[in-house]
Amino acid sequence: MTKNKEAVASIITIGDELLIGQVLDTNSAWIAQQLNVLGIWVKRRIAVGDNRDDILQALERENRDAALVIITGGLGPTADDITKPVLCEYFGGKMVMNESVLKHVRYLSEVVYKRPFIERNALQAEVPDVCTVLHNERGSAPGMWFEKNDTIFISLPGVPFEMKGIMEMEGLPRIAGKFTTTQIVHRTIITWGIGESFIAERIKVWEEKLPDYIKLAYLPHFGIVRLRLTGKGNDRSVLESELEQQENQLQLLVSEWLIAKGDLSLVNVIHSMLKANGQTVGTAESCTGGYIAQLLTGEPGSSSVYKGSIVGYSNEIKESLLNVPSSILQSRGAVSEETVTAMVSGALNILHTDYVIATSGIMGPDGGTASKPVGMVWIAAGSRSKILARKFQFRFDRQRNIEITAINALMLLRSVILENKPVTAS
Amino acid sequence: MTKNKEAVASIITIGDELLIGQVLDTNSAWIAQQLNVLGIWVKRRIAVGDNRDDILQALERENRDAALVIITGGLGPTADDITKPVLCEYFGGKMVMNESVLKHVRYLSEVVYKRPFIERNALQAEVPDVCTVLHNERGSAPGMWFEKNDTIFISLPGVPFEMKGIMEMEGLPRIAGKFTTTQIVHRTIITWGIGESFIAERIKVWEEKLPDYIKLAYLPHFGIVRLRLTGKGNDRSVLESELEQQENQLQLLVSEWLIAKGDLSLVNVIHSMLKANGQTVGTAESCTGGYIAQLLTGEPGSSSVYKGSIVGYSNEIKESLLNVPSSILQSRGAVSEETVTAMVSGALNILHTDYVIATSGIMGPDGGTASKPVGMVWIAAGSRSKILARKFQFRFDRQRNIEITAINALMLLRSVILENKPVTAS
Repeated sequence: MTKNKEAVASIITIGDELLIGQVLDTNSAWIAQQLNVLGIWVKRRIAVGDNRDDILQALERENRDAALVIITGGLGPTADDITKPVLCEYFGGKMVMNESVLKHVRYLSEVVYKRPFIERNALQAEVPDVCTVLHNERGSAPGMWFEKNDTIFISLPGVPFEMKGIMEMEGLPRIAGKFTTTQIVHRTIITWGIGESFIAERIKVWEEKLPDYIKLAYLPHFGIVRLRLTGKGNDRSVLESELEQQENQLQLLVSEWLIAKGDLSLVNVIHSMLKANGQTVGTAESCTGGYIAQLLTGEPGSSSVYKGSIVGYSNEIKESLLNVPSSILQSRGAVSEETVTAMVSGALNILHTDYVIATSGIMGPDGGTASKPVGMVWIAAGSRSKILARKFQFRFDRQRNIEITAINALMLLRSVILENKPVTAS
Repeated sequence: MTKNKEAVASIITIGDELLIGQVLDTNSAWIAQQLNVLGIWVKRRIAVGDNRDDILQALERENRDAALVIITGGLGPTADDITKPVLCEYFGGKMVMNESVLKHVRYLSEVVYKRPFIERNALQAEVPDVCTVLHNERGSAPGMWFEKNDTIFISLPGVPFEMKGIMEMEGLPRIAGKFTTTQIVHRTIITWGIGESFIAERIKVWEEKLPDYIKLAYLPHFGIVRLRLTGKGNDRSVLESELEQQENQLQLLVSEWLIAKGDLSLVNVIHSMLKANGQTVGTAESCTGGYIAQLLTGEPGSSSVYKGSIVGYSNEIKESLLNVPSSILQSRGAVSEETVTAMVSGALNILHTDYVIATSGIMGPDGGTASKPVGMVWIAAGSRSKILARKFQFRFDRQRNIEITAINALMLLRSVILENKPVTAS
């Protein structure tokens, strides 16, 4: 099976909302990650609208190039969803009622959602007679498995939680059984404080000697550069040991800027440093409005290192809750070294954490002045023994200014933790 | 120009990171929105890797189908970035040094970033001699405009801030000058508390009578269903008045569940209700960890309606800062009606806002018990005169549980605001 094609996959996402920019496609990234784990390389992703001709053209093109095609979206019960009849046409079947899906849809309606079962819901149980149904434990639109010209097609609903459930429970195990493929191994290290051009100069000699089955990618994001090595081969353990050696050489070359090994988030890095020390952190946020707090609590297990935050968006709360002296707010202003330093001290006293991060700035698009323009931010991070404060001038839009402030605040916290008690994050 | 093709566009994004799921593509959504404003319909989006053959194939296919092709990514100065030489090959040019780009790159290096100017940076100033350079005010990789077989191709860097700058300052004005296109008008209304199947039944007769140049789309997301009408035509004012009439009819049909007109975020809706009343809100968050605070402060102008938050992730902070009685925490637990109600009262007293939202729950993947399983959440919203509390049992992953908790908390706040003083959000 699928002997005549490279073991590569394509992802087709269907829905006008993807073409007018109304929603972000998060499904493709997740699917690509899962297929990579199985050693299947995604060669292409295509998004098309709820349009018969465009869907048929995409199916036909991917049928030519890929051994596996994952399709998401357009399976709802409303008139704008046309994926199912178009698949039925493409694979040459006819629509039939599937009794086991019907039973499940009825159960969801009457027992789980406690709504009357209406005729339109039964539409969800009609499937082309040329597909194998993949059970959707989490919703009413079933997954469907088709085969044509040695290519496997899997159609999934666009709702991320349902799509993931079908893939995990039904799709991925079946895919793993069908493909004996090339092994794909990724290794990522994270640097901070050096531009990608400078890294490229530094590692040039090493990079040029990389064997052709190992690729290096540079992924810069707000001062952080991820360096990802991707190797492809037949023997996983040989490949892993080779990548490990190359990664070690790369690490040595960029050791001054290395902050972590592994494709970790910066929050993962901070969490593991705090856990290693048995320490906790809290935040006192003005301009980031809780953004840093939700980053710190977005990862499982955060309650052992994070206790709480004060978002002091108004000066009133900076004064009453964080005990920033009104004389400082009046003489230096809310966006000042003195204010963020006082916010750290105030929050250390009331949150009883080992560290506190504080932010105050003008995120835009309004609120800037000649002396404090949009993008000006003061960040502080500290413990009872030492507080560091830094001034930044960012020049992005509001959302990006908030994100880059958060990254710099976490990096400043990292410096404070390292000064307090050296640990490595790897 | 471009007379022989439909005035449709394609977007090609280039980069292995998009195919292994390491980064989300946010550029395509933004580009699609901008092109829609100009009346240009995006027919397809394609993501390919940093691979010559795949890039060439994508260029050739889109050249056949689209009048405008926007390409992002792969323009960096490092060896993994190959878009520029591949474009040079495809359009049949040769690489030449562009003096004005070189001057800009040197300026960025020496004046803005205060780094030595290295040879590798100069690579950014080499462009195919068959392109028109589009100035990149915000970075070193220039935009490039090519034409072939009546199709316009625009190549842009993948960094969102730089891509947007080039498009806004150079790309979109030139595109607008080249295309005289169909008008596209969208109208969106937002409903809450009714499934898409039920809406479809309710509006069936009206939907079937829609003219064929107006399409209706259902966009469900965590209990919210957006209904989007998209009309295409030659006369913008005729189209707008027709869409307005259809939107009015649709609104009447779903009036019981209507929460807003316009493609607003739920935060926009809450902000405008609070602004109309001259009122303020704060949050007392446990399980959402500041997520609701950062939603409320993510929009410009939030300081007039939002004052601050306490994130009480640990019980210690719930007790010491939010004054939740330890007897309640011990007898009822942190995830209980009594706790979230006390959190609202405590925060109203210290934040001095008109309203407070409180959350406490188990977001997973760990921390659940038989009586309080993962996904169980108590939410409260209230003012000094009334506090409403609701229990939920969600069954998503951690991040989705946090998101749906936030949406339900904002909807509960909306109910409280409406009970206090009726206003409409439209």
